[in-house]
Amino acid sequence: MSLRLPSSPSAVLGPGDDAAVISLKGDLVVSSDVLIEGRHFRCEWSTASDVGFRAAIQNLADIDAMGAVPVALQVTLAAPPTTEVEWVLDFADGLREACEPLGVGVVGGDLSGAKEIAISVTAIGDTMGFQPVRRGGAHHADILAVSGPLGAAMAGYHQLDNLLDFDQEAIDLFLRPRPRIGAGVKAARAGATSMMDISDGLVTDLARMARASALAMSIDSRLVPVHPAAVAVAAAVVGNADEWALTGGEDHHLVASFPPNAKLPDGWMEIGVVTRDRQGVLVNGEVPSRWGWDHFARI
Amino acid sequence: MSLRLPSSPSAVLGPGDDAAVISLKGDLVVSSDVLIEGRHFRCEWSTASDVGFRAAIQNLADIDAMGAVPVALQVTLAAPPTTEVEWVLDFADGLREACEPLGVGVVGGDLSGAKEIAISVTAIGDTMGFQPVRRGGAHHADILAVSGPLGAAMAGYHQLDNLLDFDQEAIDLFLRPRPRIGAGVKAARAGATSMMDISDGLVTDLARMARASALAMSIDSRLVPVHPAAVAVAAAVVGNADEWALTGGEDHHLVASFPPNAKLPDGWMEIGVVTRDRQGVLVNGEVPSRWGWDHFARI
Repeated sequence: MSLRLPSSPSAVLGPGDDAAVISLKGDLVVSSDVLIEGRHFRCEWSTASDVGFRAAIQNLADIDAMGAVPVALQVTLAAPPTTEVEWVLDFADGLREACEPLGVGVVGGDLSGAKEIAISVTAIGDTMGFQPVRRGGAHHADILAVSGPLGAAMAGYHQLDNLLDFDQEAIDLFLRPRPRIGAGVKAARAGATSMMDISDGLVTDLARMARASALAMSIDSRLVPVHPAAVAVAAAVVGNADEWALTGGEDHHLVASFPPNAKLPDGWMEIGVVTRDRQGVLVNGEVPSRWGWDHFARI
Repeated sequence: MSLRLPSSPSAVLGPGDDAAVISLKGDLVVSSDVLIEGRHFRCEWSTASDVGFRAAIQNLADIDAMGAVPVALQVTLAAPPTTEVEWVLDFADGLREACEPLGVGVVGGDLSGAKEIAISVTAIGDTMGFQPVRRGGAHHADILAVSGPLGAAMAGYHQLDNLLDFDQEAIDLFLRPRPRIGAGVKAARAGATSMMDISDGLVTDLARMARASALAMSIDSRLVPVHPAAVAVAAAVVGNADEWALTGGEDHHLVASFPPNAKLPDGWMEIGVVTRDRQGVLVNGEVPSRWGWDHFARI
């Protein structure tokens, strides 16, 4: 597998020894995710390279969400003995496709047999000497912004789950999320006070930021950028693209707060404001309903 | 789980954000292992805390084998939904029991459902500004030494596998290997030229060192320290403790090469010499038989 894996320019020592050695300029930033077959991906929907791509990119987004530069991955893969070698090689290709454009290497890992495919990825990043941006640093009157249009992954999932194929782009964006890795570092340099990866949906993740700051995150749903593919799919299936954008998750773009006078970096779009007057998440001034988003259906 | 997990003094930011942040003094050293239920451990033999202890210690040994100081772990745990919370808490206890005496923290990870228990541990170490010790740096005439007595883990396995209980210490050492973490750093400071963790058995792992150095590792089987518990079990079951020490693995002590004039650190025991006259592993001057160790049975 190692021949098809990307190498890291920061690696003093790559795979093949008891451990890899990496030279960092600043502090280490580290995050891990596990992906289990049938839970985090389905082999009938995703090719092995899709799985590798997603496994890499969602961890790289976590590093970017700290305002740090991703440099390397450790990857463990457990798979049934019947898994074809080609699947494993394709998985490595997907890792490489996600990592190589960013200069990120796979520096080590482990392989094992198992009853089902279980992947664990640990992403390693470098603060480059800057302060990491946490979830809980927002201040009253900060601007809230997102780093990309939302809802496409959910529009893709909705199609796959209903055996539809109105829009291939949305399906691709569900199988291979395409956050702009590096948007987080730019946000950090622009003064972002808090930031996180939107993995479970904008409202859910904003609730986490709100809790961490003990403030309210108040957004205007009309400002939330909806991916055009989500709009197209919603029109075709009588779905609600706004709801997908607000609650869908899996797009892996970032949400951040910036000081009121900050100039947002390219591609960041304002969606609301931080306020000390309430707590939690407010959508158009209201606490969103947890179980059904009825008021969005009525927008 | 986090309340029962150890924290790391090096952690600038622990669990709970998109990523953890760790301040290292030197380069990053990183290693990952996966442990699958029924393959790397059996729930009928190991308590959850045994599994946690082993998952931690075998990765910490990999860091020590580079001559680096372990500082933190990332741990992902996937387990069937029927797994009791108590199992997960006990698993965390085992991680803590391995890590806390060493000042190592669990700084992050992930939890998921799965059909079987799948654990992935990534250990993070710090070179502290020293050169890491690789597998392939041995020179002709270097001394070979090991950091502890071998064979106990195999003597423990043999008992469990045959429903015997002659010696609880050996069983404990199989379920919870007790390498002297820190022996690797001491070896590095004493000038070790190559080093690795003995995880698959002394002869197998020496063959890897030999290949990495393109030299021969020539050992005297009478010098290889055999754990007293292995001797006791072998006497009881008519087993071969020497063979367990040479081929058993799982003890997770280290093997290293030192310059001829080096003073071995405390606890390191000389077992042979590196030579350019041959390649591979030599035991008492012979190439060991791969399939049965007949000549050891005759010693």
